[in-house]
Amino acid sequence: MTSPSSRRGFLTAAVTSAAALWTPRRARGFTARELSAHVVDGKLDLGVSKWELDTPALCVDLDKLEQNLAALRTGLAATRVASRPHAKTHKCAAIAKLQLASGSIGICTAKVSEAEALFAEGLTKILMTTANVTRAKIARAMAIAKRNRDFVQAVDHPDNARELSAAAKAAGITADVVVDVAVGTRTGVPAGDQALALAQLVDTLPNLRFRGMLAYDGGAQHIKGYRARSEQALERIQPAAQTYERMKAGGLNVEIFSGGGTGTYDIMTKVPGFTDVQAGSYVFMDTQYLEIGGARDEAVFTDFAPSLTVLTTVVNAYFPGRLTTDAGTKALTLNKPDPIVIGEPGFAYTAGSDEFGVIRYENATKPCKVGDKLELIVPHCDPVVNEYDVVYATRKDRVEAVWPITARGKSQ
Amino acid sequence: MTSPSSRRGFLTAAVTSAAALWTPRRARGFTARELSAHVVDGKLDLGVSKWELDTPALCVDLDKLEQNLAALRTGLAATRVASRPHAKTHKCAAIAKLQLASGSIGICTAKVSEAEALFAEGLTKILMTTANVTRAKIARAMAIAKRNRDFVQAVDHPDNARELSAAAKAAGITADVVVDVAVGTRTGVPAGDQALALAQLVDTLPNLRFRGMLAYDGGAQHIKGYRARSEQALERIQPAAQTYERMKAGGLNVEIFSGGGTGTYDIMTKVPGFTDVQAGSYVFMDTQYLEIGGARDEAVFTDFAPSLTVLTTVVNAYFPGRLTTDAGTKALTLNKPDPIVIGEPGFAYTAGSDEFGVIRYENATKPCKVGDKLELIVPHCDPVVNEYDVVYATRKDRVEAVWPITARGKSQ
Repeated sequence: MTSPSSRRGFLTAAVTSAAALWTPRRARGFTARELSAHVVDGKLDLGVSKWELDTPALCVDLDKLEQNLAALRTGLAATRVASRPHAKTHKCAAIAKLQLASGSIGICTAKVSEAEALFAEGLTKILMTTANVTRAKIARAMAIAKRNRDFVQAVDHPDNARELSAAAKAAGITADVVVDVAVGTRTGVPAGDQALALAQLVDTLPNLRFRGMLAYDGGAQHIKGYRARSEQALERIQPAAQTYERMKAGGLNVEIFSGGGTGTYDIMTKVPGFTDVQAGSYVFMDTQYLEIGGARDEAVFTDFAPSLTVLTTVVNAYFPGRLTTDAGTKALTLNKPDPIVIGEPGFAYTAGSDEFGVIRYENATKPCKVGDKLELIVPHCDPVVNEYDVVYATRKDRVEAVWPITARGKSQ
Repeated sequence: MTSPSSRRGFLTAAVTSAAALWTPRRARGFTARELSAHVVDGKLDLGVSKWELDTPALCVDLDKLEQNLAALRTGLAATRVASRPHAKTHKCAAIAKLQLASGSIGICTAKVSEAEALFAEGLTKILMTTANVTRAKIARAMAIAKRNRDFVQAVDHPDNARELSAAAKAAGITADVVVDVAVGTRTGVPAGDQALALAQLVDTLPNLRFRGMLAYDGGAQHIKGYRARSEQALERIQPAAQTYERMKAGGLNVEIFSGGGTGTYDIMTKVPGFTDVQAGSYVFMDTQYLEIGGARDEAVFTDFAPSLTVLTTVVNAYFPGRLTTDAGTKALTLNKPDPIVIGEPGFAYTAGSDEFGVIRYENATKPCKVGDKLELIVPHCDPVVNEYDVVYATRKDRVEAVWPITARGKSQ
């Protein structure tokens, strides 16, 4: 384990390095482009208190973000497993660069449009975890691969593998490919013979380079209780793990064996051959992950700190036991568990209305009136981030940078 | 009632007129700015089949959209009530212009950032239905009002009215204001004495011009069955309607009495003095509104046609009775009822995963394989539209225009 001071050291370096990427013209993380393209009235000063921001506003606390980067690094330090964080969570080039600076070996994207957007901002070490099955998406993926030798894409079907090889040939390249092996029934080729045959096919196709396999278990991430999650995740990964062993025994170049998420980052390390975990939510956290429990506390998952919040304003306080705010579905999504109002344990927040949030309460720590601002931990970080153009990066409540959500809305 | 041919005539005129706004450089609805800013690879040809679009793709069928514009116009033609459609639904300047061209007297916005974005695209007749309660939002609203004499904003609290008057004075203007009278407990001043006193206050404040009142009943829109909806909506509006009568009797200039939505557009017409309905979803429809039932059919609301769809692609078909698609929560939201797969009544679609949709089925009208595209009616149009940068406007499945979602993500 690194000492606190050296950990702090690399994080400071990481933040300084990333901040530099966003400050070619101004002192504190704010480019002219961001100013004109994203900031509403062009009048926001860096250093302003986040409580001065108009709402709804998406914020990330930099101290907590750094703590989370350090926790993942530290948590994996004693293992041979690396991290390759999933950028579908934050969709933000600035945060991806912080992750790489803190020791991650690359990032993942779920969609080719995310890969395009992040590559355009200088990210190269991209593993795309979903197969590209349309002609348009294959062309887009090959366009990235042609310019970026570090781009790796998933495949889960022999027809698709042949299409990829043909497209790579047409592009004049050899494309790097991993086979996505199903854990569950959502994506991927079934583990076992079919997966092995697909890996062998990819290995023989002229314009593809077989790099290994993925095995992501989406269903395991939110199993409550560390012990139950650990047992089930390790059992469910078995067919994929055996497939990995067969690939390896068959002489295939299984240099990548990637999967896992925030809920299993410290569990997948026990799978022989596993190379990297794709944790995404760990940078932000949310109410969904808080309640899964961890190895230290079976009730609350405390490995990572809730760094992501939404600021909202009370817009109506006429009615007893009830407040209306300006953050509804379009600002918080409909995910459950409901948002948590920081500092007001008696507030039950519902984001069920498109434009408005509703709070019901019996007890408040202080009187709440129209215009008051509240801070919320979001239900599920990924889709919430996707609702915003920018995230305000704050430290001790001061805005230190404004980061574009680079791949916001990139669902293709 | 206008004849079918003249109705068709005004719609053709409306579409031609609106299309002209988007075709300064190309023949068919596609500006160079849109091309560079929004279309992924710059290679999309207008006239292409929508089935060639990469997915997820948001589409609107122009024949159905025109049918809906005509249906609202026709439905209100015999009444003294106008339409002032709520732009929070579509957030799209092109569609707002079609609504005005089809006879609507203006549009509504829920947020000041929506008003800014639509005003920047040339829309002036904007009624903002939510009070601006922060210093920042008041400044933004006054900046619009200073340049746009047709801008009207809501107020629901005396303190806020005084702040608005002071801000209007500072801006050197008299700002147009309507009082938002609560129907339910979400927004607005309680009906009766408080609302009347607020109207009188607004009328006397030096830099505000009192224009009337709002009374929107969000809870009434989705009451199932026309008869039940009608009875409850008319009962719930009573306190606000009585407040209107008192304002009028008191000599106040109640030239606006606005409210209602897609579920009550033909019910609010029975409220004395009501001037305009704020229907929004009528242009698009969704599974939520289909099931409320209408005056013609108690089970299905057929007054308007489902014009809005999302195209999705099958990405996994390995597992029996199950398909995975590329449209999940970030493309369809978590709203219920679930999306409807057009032409496949046996498909149960769930958008519960961030990146993927899941279909469970026993019977399909035709075999479904990876790469096949499906078309979905969305659960709830407003938040779905907010996930996309553009909507493809199609006619007989050909892309006729690509419209930016002007106010996408404008939740402030």
